[in-house]
This record gives sequence, structure tokens and C-alpha cells, in this order.
Amino acid sequence: MKYGIVGRSGRMGQEIEKLFGDAGHELVLASDAAGTECGGKPEVILDFSSRDALAGTAELCGTHGAALIVGTTALSEEQLASLRKLGEKAVVVQSFNFAAGVNVLKMILRDYAPLLSDWDMEIEETHHSKKKDAPSGTAVLLREAAGRDAPAHSLRLGGVPGDHSVHFANDGEVLSFTHRALSRGVFALGALRAALFALKARPGFYSFGDVLRTGKEK
Amino acid sequence: MKYGIVGRSGRMGQEIEKLFGDAGHELVLASDAAGTECGGKPEVILDFSSRDALAGTAELCGTHGAALIVGTTALSEEQLASLRKLGEKAVVVQSFNFAAGVNVLKMILRDYAPLLSDWDMEIEETHHSKKKDAPSGTAVLLREAAGRDAPAHSLRLGGVPGDHSVHFANDGEVLSFTHRALSRGVFALGALRAALFALKARPGFYSFGDVLRTGKEK
Amino acid sequence: MKYGIVGRSGRMGQEIEKLFGDAGHELVLASDAAGTECGGKPEVILDFSSRDALAGTAELCGTHGAALIVGTTALSEEQLASLRKLGEKAVVVQSFNFAAGVNVLKMILRDYAPLLSDWDMEIEETHHSKKKDAPSGTAVLLREAAGRDAPAHSLRLGGVPGDHSVHFANDGEVLSFTHRALSRGVFALGALRAALFALKARPGFYSFGDVLRTGKEK
Amino acid sequence: MKYGIVGRSGRMGQEIEKLFGDAGHELVLASDAAGTECGGKPEVILDFSSRDALAGTAELCGTHGAALIVGTTALSEEQLASLRKLGEKAVVVQSFNFAAGVNVLKMILRDYAPLLSDWDMEIEETHHSKKKDAPSGTAVLLREAAGRDAPAHSLRLGGVPGDHSVHFANDGEVLSFTHRALSRGVFALGALRAALFALKARPGFYSFGDVLRTGKEK
Repeated sequence: MKYGIVGRSGRMGQEIEKLFGDAGHELVLASDAAGTECGGKPEVILDFSSRDALAGTAELCGTHGAALIVGTTALSEEQLASLRKLGEKAVVVQSFNFAAGVNVLKMILRDYAPLLSDWDMEIEETHHSKKKDAPSGTAVLLREAAGRDAPAHSLRLGGVPGDHSVHFANDGEVLSFTHRALSRGVFALGALRAALFALKARPGFYSFGDVLRTGKEK
Repeated sequence: MKYGIVGRSGRMGQEIEKLFGDAGHELVLASDAAGTECGGKPEVILDFSSRDALAGTAELCGTHGAALIVGTTALSEEQLASLRKLGEKAVVVQSFNFAAGVNVLKMILRDYAPLLSDWDMEIEETHHSKKKDAPSGTAVLLREAAGRDAPAHSLRLGGVPGDHSVHFANDGEVLSFTHRALSRGVFALGALRAALFALKARPGFYSFGDVLRTGKEK
Repeated sequence: MKYGIVGRSGRMGQEIEKLFGDAGHELVLASDAAGTECGGKPEVILDFSSRDALAGTAELCGTHGAALIVGTTALSEEQLASLRKLGEKAVVVQSFNFAAGVNVLKMILRDYAPLLSDWDMEIEETHHSKKKDAPSGTAVLLREAAGRDAPAHSLRLGGVPGDHSVHFANDGEVLSFTHRALSRGVFALGALRAALFALKARPGFYSFGDVLRTGKEK
Repeated sequence: MKYGIVGRSGRMGQEIEKLFGDAGHELVLASDAAGTECGGKPEVILDFSSRDALAGTAELCGTHGAALIVGTTALSEEQLASLRKLGEKAVVVQSFNFAAGVNVLKMILRDYAPLLSDWDMEIEETHHSKKKDAPSGTAVLLREAAGRDAPAHSLRLGGVPGDHSVHFANDGEVLSFTHRALSRGVFALGALRAALFALKARPGFYSFGDVLRTGKEK
């Protein structure tokens, strides 16, 4: 596929370029703080940069008739609403986390945390020591999926790519759900999966959960 | 409530007698290899002994019009069929594990393991060093819930009451589900919850999952 | 042995009375806020109550010529000094944690944390939801053994008796040390071990580590 | 430094070439099944290939007066003896695992497992699903360090670079030691550390533990 990246020089942009390149896809558009280079017509544009870039990215998609994959965190309600509107005429896939396992865990918590409403709940996340924000966006996403408040503990340890645990306990039992990313490449892999999905999908506003389920129905 | 125990002198029988006594319930029937003592009409009879006792237990339930809670493992297909038949006129609650968390985990695996069918899967269980059988009945139950085969590793360590983990992994992620029993009393607690459910239920063949869900709907 | 308990009605006092009774030892002195009952001459007196009781306990030991086992936390430097002085003529065993494994972990951290001085370090402890102080005394003890500062995260979950983890990590590796108490009885078991040690020891001020090592040399 | 690799095309050879290159060192000798290419005089030669290559590697070291870093597993007693002999006139660093944390864990087990001789012991290791041998060489190394037999459980899961846990337990406690490699690059990092050590060391037969300790003394 021909694709574009907004935020190409960022860590996630570089992971995407490397993985998509290895898989034989062609980078034809690259955008950055410094400007936009364009050498063809992208079918899909990926944006894992910052919320400030999103309006410009949406415009690029309109210009090229490209699908949009958005992994940017901390989007406002207005931005989500505008993405939903864009989904009326284009393919838009939006998620705060593109790891398949995190999305499975999110669905499990949404479905089963209510059964555990009288258990204590605690969240833990461990990331490399260079990560500055805490708790992680994924910890927040998991807490929201569980539909209740819970303390979140943030450990910063060496080069850990990203671990998340959600613990429930009552007097006699502990039930723990743990996700561990083995490398940062896993998020680029999710982005590729979403891009391949987008090539075949009808216009709409999709979550990464939709991407995962479609793969399974075939 | 007035209740009876089949297998009163066994480890689980004693846990039940202690917990039910502490909660103010009255033991009126106790059965063992040595015979049956009866000092009243039980509303519920609990059997966590061995499969050989089950026919006699069912008869006792018939005599007294009592509900039946069965936690015996390794029941045959015929025995399960006869319990289902008994459920046409009496309340029967049957499960291979009476810990709430294990039953939640079982439901999660049934619902979500299919989404992870192309991930590797491994099961681990850790129990006290006196446990002789391996893998544990609960490990088998979880594997069946996941609907696929997977290696099961059995660790025997000191006085551990019972840990179970189910791990899924692909190239970039590991997703783990872990249940930990904090003491053997947790299974007696589940039996009490099932007995309280049985007092109010209509005749039927129930799983421990049915008991858990009913508690939540109220 | 004939023994005494200061703080008999407290949780730890009751665990000790139960375990020592099961092991055939005779309670001949019991002290509490309400006063002291004495029905014989104790060989050992155990105090796991509060720091305010310690002066009175030391006096009781003097009166009866009894050895002293102290598990009270939050002792002042003055109190530790007076215990050391008492050790010149009597057997005194003092520790902030009477679980064998915690003491092994403490020795390991003292010996090996210096080799990991350029790794990140984080401490986690999980206890039942009724525990009010945080971090736990044991977490503080482990941090001191490691000889450096590190964040300590306190999870409060259901009926967990007490877990402690110390994690070290650099860019490429994580090394974790985890201790898990299976029940509160483990601390009473350590107290019994210390009391049996005290019966045979010469006057001195001992740590629980001394108790453990003596057992191994024989 | 100018260095050489025996087994350059293997997985570990490639990790070494990449890391040493990034750190500014110059590959001047590369040996493989296909033959040896030499474009300079190496100060250090690294061999993480197979035991069959070792005799040839030792010869290359003799020819060039180079130090030798050996990470090959499954060496025979004869081979270890010949390396010790080579250490009389050259610098030789030999280890079955070049991760710093594994070597720290090995020293801890050697020193402290005897204190836990009456506890149960179990070993677990988890590696990527492509690893064929089981248990891992590192699991064997840790078992030997503990100086006693223990069951070893091998889990094969997705892309896990390598986890090892050693558990000890008695009736009341569990003590666990866990090492987790975050990527395969960590072993190349250890090889680099050993090579830098070798440049300054006097002739001798060194373990990776010697390399680690030297770093700390400075």
C-alpha cells in the first residue's frame, strides 16, 4: 500500500516506517513540524503524533481521499466528535492503544468488572524510566473500561516497554489481569493491522476492537 | 438454615461445618464412610466428598426434600445426567470449583479465548506440596473453558492454597489471567453462597455461575 | 516451655497463643492494657504489642529471669539501646519481621543491592484492605537493607496477608525479589522459633537472622 | 577496539556486530562455517557459536594475541580445562549467560539457597516459541548455583526473550527470584562489557561475575 505518516521523526513514526517498509509498503507522504513532503497519493495516513497535528492530518486525508489511522492520546471531546463526523464519508480507525491484547483486556473489563463490583480494585503500570506522564494513557483506558475508580500505581523501571496489571480481590481471592508489551514494535504492528483493515472497509468510525473482530470473523 | 454434609470428616467437610456454624446455621445431618447421623430435616445437603457417595446423597435429598450442592470432582457423564434429571424437581447446584473468581475466569476464557486463537497458550497451577493429583481439576476446567489444548505446568510449593494462571502470547505481547486463593476457606464461602441461593431458587440444575449472576441482578 | 505474652488480646497475641498452645507450651503470664495475670514463672516473654508497653515488658523479664522476644515495630533509638543493654545479662531477640523469608531477603539486599547500584529500584507491597499504615514496616526494612532510596507502592487488596516485591532494572533486564506470606500464622511460627532458640542461647542481643543461622549450623 | 566474531551470521553474532558497530568498534575478523575473513589484527575475539568451533577460535586467538570471550553453551569438561589452560597466558572470559542480572542471581542462589534447604524449590523459565531445547541452559545454571535438584518448568510463549524464576516455599511463605530479559540485545551488551574488561585485564581465566565485580570496585 501507499501510505503517509504524520509525525514521522517521532519514536512511533519511526517504528511505523520501519515495520511498514519491511512489509513492502511505500511511504509517499511524511509530515512533521518542519513541513510536509509528498511524493504520491497515500491510501492511508497514520497519525501517532500530538493532538495539535490532528486538524492538519484530517485535511490531508480529505485532499488525498485517504483512510485515517489515529493513535494520538489526549484527544478532546471536540476532536473525537470531528473524527466521528469524518467517519461519515471516510474510513477512520481511532484508539488510544493499538496492542491487540490491551484491547481484549479492555473488552473483558467492560464485560466482567461489574461482576466484581464488591471486590477491591487496584491498577499497576510499569514503563521505562524515560516515560514522563503517569499514570499511562492505557491505565486510564483500562480504569474507564472497568467503569469505576481505582488507585493506579506507576513504576518506572529501566527499559520496560510497558506492563499493565488490574487486580481485583475480596477476603479470599485475588484475580489479576496482566498485559505485557514485549517491545514497542507491537504498537506499529497494530497500526499495520488497522491500515490493512482500512483498505477494505467501508466509510465509518472504527475502534481497534472492530479491527480485531473483523480479522476473527473471516 | 438447617443443613447436612456428606463427607463431614474430610477437609472440605470440616471447612464447611466451621464456616456454616460461624454464620449461625445448624448441622442436622452428617454422613460419612462410617454411616449417617440425622437429627432433623435439612433444607440443603452439601456433598464435596467423592463420586462414589453421590448416589446415596441424591437419595438423602429425595427423602428430605432438600436442595443439593455438589462440589465433587471427577463426576462421570452418567452422574452429571442424573443430576440434571434431579434438577427437574429439586434445586441442584453443581460446580467443579466454588471460588467466585475461578468462575469469573472461566466465563472470560469461554468468551475471549476465541479472539486469541492464534496466540500461544500455557497454563500454570501452584498448590501445596501435599496435593497429589496434577494438573488440578481447576486447571482442566480452565483449559476446557478456553476450548483448546494447552500445556499445563504443576508446581508444588509449601503451603500454597491454590494459584492458577493462563497465559496467552504472540510475537509482541503477553496477556495473563491469574487467580489466587488466599485460603481454603474461600471454597466453603462459595458453598455457603450456593446454599443461600438454593433456599430461594426454583427447582433446576444450576452452575455456580448462575449463583454469582443472581447475586448481581438484585 | 512456660511462656508469657504482652498484648495477649491483640491479633498477633492471639496467633501466638493459638500456635504455642497447639505445640504444647504453657501460657503462664498474660499482660494487656487491662493489667497482668500471672500463674507461674515464664522462661520466655513475647511482646508484639506497641512501643509503649516495652518498658513494662523489660521489667517483667527482669522479675522472672525470662528471655525476651520483641516484634514491636516503630521502636525508638533509645528503646533499641536499652534492649541492647538488657542483652548483656539476658537473652533478647529483636526483629521488625519474624518471617524467615523476609529476613533472608533482607540479607540478600544488604549483600547484593550494591552490585545493582546503577539499576532503577522500586518497591511494592500488597496487604489486606484493613491495613492502615503505608508503606508497611517491612517495606521500610527492605529499603534500608538495600541502602538506598526508592519509591514504595502500597496496594490494599481484600484479604492478602502480605506480599513484598523489590524490583531492579536497567535498559535490558529486570531482576525481582518477591516475598509472600501465606497466612498471618507465619509470624507466630517465627516467634516460636525465636523462643525455642532463646531457651538454649547465652545472654545476648540477637536478630531474627541469628535465630535462622543457628538453626542451619546444627 | 578492533574485534573479531566467530559465528558472525548467527543470531547472537549479528546482535554483537550491530551493538559493537553502534559503539564505534571495528570488526576486523569474521569467521563462519563458510570460512574466515580477516582484515586486521583483533584485540578481542568473541565466540557465541557452537562448541565445535571452539578449538579453531582458540587458535585464532593465539595467532593474533587476542583476548577471548566465550559464550558458547554445552562445553565439555575437556573444553573448559583447555580454556583454563589458555588463561595462563591470555585473557579468557567464559560464561553460559552474559546478562548481568542472571549472574547476580547465580551468586545469590549460591550464597543463600543453603539457608532455604528445607523449603520446596521449583524453577520456571519462559522463552519464545522458537526455542527448541528445554530446560534452558540458564535454568540449569541457576539450579546448579542453588546446589540442589528441583523441577524445571519450560513455558514457550510467543516472542518472550527469556524469563527465569526460582521459587522457594515452606508452609507459611513463598520467596521468589525472577529475572526477565527485555530483549536479546542484553546478552550482546554483556559481551561488550566483557570485551572492554578484557582489554585492560591481565592474563587469566575469568567468569562474567569477575567482570561485574571489577566494574563495581572502580
